[in-house]
Amino acid sequence: MGPHPAVAAIRLAVRRVLNDILAEHGRTPGRLTPDERSSSPLVLVACSGGADSMALASALAFEAPRAGLRAGGVTVDHGLQPGSGPRAVEVASRLRELGLDPVESVAVTVGRDGGPEAAARDARYAALDAAAERHRAAAVLLGHTRDDQAETVLLGLARGSGIRSLSGMAAVSGADGRYRRPFLQLDRQTARKACMVQSLPVWDDPHNTDPAYTRSRLRHEGLPALEKALGKGVVEALARTAQLSRDDADALDAWAGKAAAGVRDDDGRLECAALHDLPPAVRRRVLRRAAIDAGAPAGSLFARHIEEVDRLITGWRGQGAINLPGRVVARRQGGRLVIRQG
Amino acid sequence: MGPHPAVAAIRLAVRRVLNDILAEHGRTPGRLTPDERSSSPLVLVACSGGADSMALASALAFEAPRAGLRAGGVTVDHGLQPGSGPRAVEVASRLRELGLDPVESVAVTVGRDGGPEAAARDARYAALDAAAERHRAAAVLLGHTRDDQAETVLLGLARGSGIRSLSGMAAVSGADGRYRRPFLQLDRQTARKACMVQSLPVWDDPHNTDPAYTRSRLRHEGLPALEKALGKGVVEALARTAQLSRDDADALDAWAGKAAAGVRDDDGRLECAALHDLPPAVRRRVLRRAAIDAGAPAGSLFARHIEEVDRLITGWRGQGAINLPGRVVARRQGGRLVIRQG
Repeated sequence: MGPHPAVAAIRLAVRRVLNDILAEHGRTPGRLTPDERSSSPLVLVACSGGADSMALASALAFEAPRAGLRAGGVTVDHGLQPGSGPRAVEVASRLRELGLDPVESVAVTVGRDGGPEAAARDARYAALDAAAERHRAAAVLLGHTRDDQAETVLLGLARGSGIRSLSGMAAVSGADGRYRRPFLQLDRQTARKACMVQSLPVWDDPHNTDPAYTRSRLRHEGLPALEKALGKGVVEALARTAQLSRDDADALDAWAGKAAAGVRDDDGRLECAALHDLPPAVRRRVLRRAAIDAGAPAGSLFARHIEEVDRLITGWRGQGAINLPGRVVARRQGGRLVIRQG
Repeated sequence: MGPHPAVAAIRLAVRRVLNDILAEHGRTPGRLTPDERSSSPLVLVACSGGADSMALASALAFEAPRAGLRAGGVTVDHGLQPGSGPRAVEVASRLRELGLDPVESVAVTVGRDGGPEAAARDARYAALDAAAERHRAAAVLLGHTRDDQAETVLLGLARGSGIRSLSGMAAVSGADGRYRRPFLQLDRQTARKACMVQSLPVWDDPHNTDPAYTRSRLRHEGLPALEKALGKGVVEALARTAQLSRDDADALDAWAGKAAAGVRDDDGRLECAALHDLPPAVRRRVLRRAAIDAGAPAGSLFARHIEEVDRLITGWRGQGAINLPGRVVARRQGGRLVIRQG
C-alpha cells in the first residue's frame, strides 16, 4: 500500500524539483554511499512551522536521500509576536526530527519599509539568502501553494499596473535560481492533509487570520466571495493567469529591450518618430525602462506616470516637462524625448 | 452656473467620442443649418432604460446637435420578462422626449446558446447591428461603465485563459468600429447621479440583482468583498488592467502573426526547431492560431489544450497525437508539427 494521496502529491512535487536541481548539477537521481553523500549538493527548506512548509519539509526529508541530495532546514524568527523565539527553537527541533541536517533557527529584526508585510518579507529573504550562502546550498525550497499564488495575483491586480504584477511568484527565482516553489501547483488543502495523515504538528500563524493584514482579508473574505460568485475554479484560474502573464511579460520585455536600441539617435537620445511607430505596449515598456535608467525608482513609477510621458509622443500639443518620481523629468525637445534627473 | 458635475462628466465623455466620429468623417464640430443637418452622420444610442444608458442618451441628445451630428436611439425588447414589450415602448418614448430621432424599439428572440447571458447578448448585438445598417448609422453608443469593465475583467480572470480575456471591453469595437463606449472610464455612480439631477426616470433590470446570474453575484457580492479586502481602488485598477492587457495582447498577437510565417517550411508545415526558438508566449499564440486555422473552434480551445500541443515542441519524448476540439489533431512528424482536421 502506497502513501496517502496527499503525501504522494507533495512528494511528487518535491521530487520533480529535486530532479531539476540534480540535472542542473549534472547528476542523476539515486542513493549515495556515506562518502559520496558528504559532497552532494545541499537543499534547504524554509519552514515557518505552518502546514505548507512543514509538509514541504517532510517531503524533502523523504525524497532528498533517495535522489542523492543532502537536505537541511532554516526557520526564521521574525520576533514580531510574544513567544516567537521558543517557537522557532521548537520548529527547528521538529525539522531535526524529520532527519534534516543542518537545521538553523535565525532571528531577524523587521524594519518598517513598505509596510509590515513587505518589511517582514525583506528581512526573511535576507536571512534565507545569508543561510544559503553560509551553507553553500544549491537551492532553498519555499512552501508557497497555488492558493498563495492566487492571492498574490489578486494583490497585483489591485495595483492595476499591468501584467507583470499579475504574474505572481515564479517557480524559480532569486540569485542563480536559488529559490524553488515546488507547491505552486498544489492546493493548500493537500499540504494540510499531508501534515495530518503524517501526524505532523503544525502551527497556525495568527497573522494569517488577522484582518489587519491585506493578504489575510483576501484569504478569508475576498477570495471566498469571488469563489462564491465565479465558481470553485477561481484559484486555479488565477494561478494559470499568473503563469501566462509571466510568459507574456517576459516576451514583451525582451521585445522592448531590443526595440530600445532601434529608437535612439547617434547620441543615444530617444527619437519621437521611431517611438511613435512602436506598438503601445512596447513603447510604454521602452519609456518605463528609460525612466528607471534615468533614476526613477521602479516601485514608485506607476502606469499613470508612463501614460503621461507617452502622451508626449502620441498626443503632442506642446505640453511642458513631466515630473517623475526620483526627480526625473521627461520633456520633448525637437523631435527627441529627453528623460533625465534634475 | 454650469451643469451638475455628474452631468458635465457624462457630456464630456460623449463629446470626446463624437469628436472622434466627426474627425473620422473629415468634419469639425459645430451646429448645422437644417439643410446640412439632413445629410450629417447619425449616431445611435443603445438604451435599456437603465441609469447608464439613459444618462448616455441624455448626453447624446445634448451634445449631438452642438457637434453637428444627428442622434437616434434603439431599445431592444428581449422578451424575457413579463411586461418587457410595454416597457420597451415606454423607453422609446422617453428617448423621443429627449429629442432623439429616429427612435426604434426592436423585439428579439433570445436563444439558448452559451447560457442565458451570452444568448441575450448575441440577440441584442444582432438587433443593434441590423438597426445600425438600416439607418446607415455612423456609430452606436453603448452605456458600459468602468464598473461593468471591472466585472468583465473578473469574469475573464475566472476563465484563466490569459491576458486577452483580461482585456475586457474595447472603447471601440465591432464592424468598422461601429460600437463606442464613452463611459468606460466613468463610474456607474456618476451615471446614476446624472439621471437623478436631470430627473430622468430609470428602470432597474431585475436581472442585475438576480443571484442566478454570474455577473449579478459578482456585482453585489464578489466585487464588494474584494474592495473590502483590497481597498476602494479595485474597480479603477481592474479597468486599467483591462486597457494594459488589451495593448499587450494586441502586440503579442501581432508578433505571433509575423512569427508564424517564419516557422514554416516551403510546404507550409510548422518546423519544430524554429518553434522551439520562439519565446513561449509567442509560440503558444502561433500554435493556437494554427489550431483555429485547422478548424478548432476558438471558444472551445483552452490554455490546457495549447499547453499539451506545446509539449510536442518543448517536451518531446515520443508522445502520440493530441486531440483538440473540432476533431483537430496535432502530431509531430519528423521535425514538423502537423495540425489538421480528421
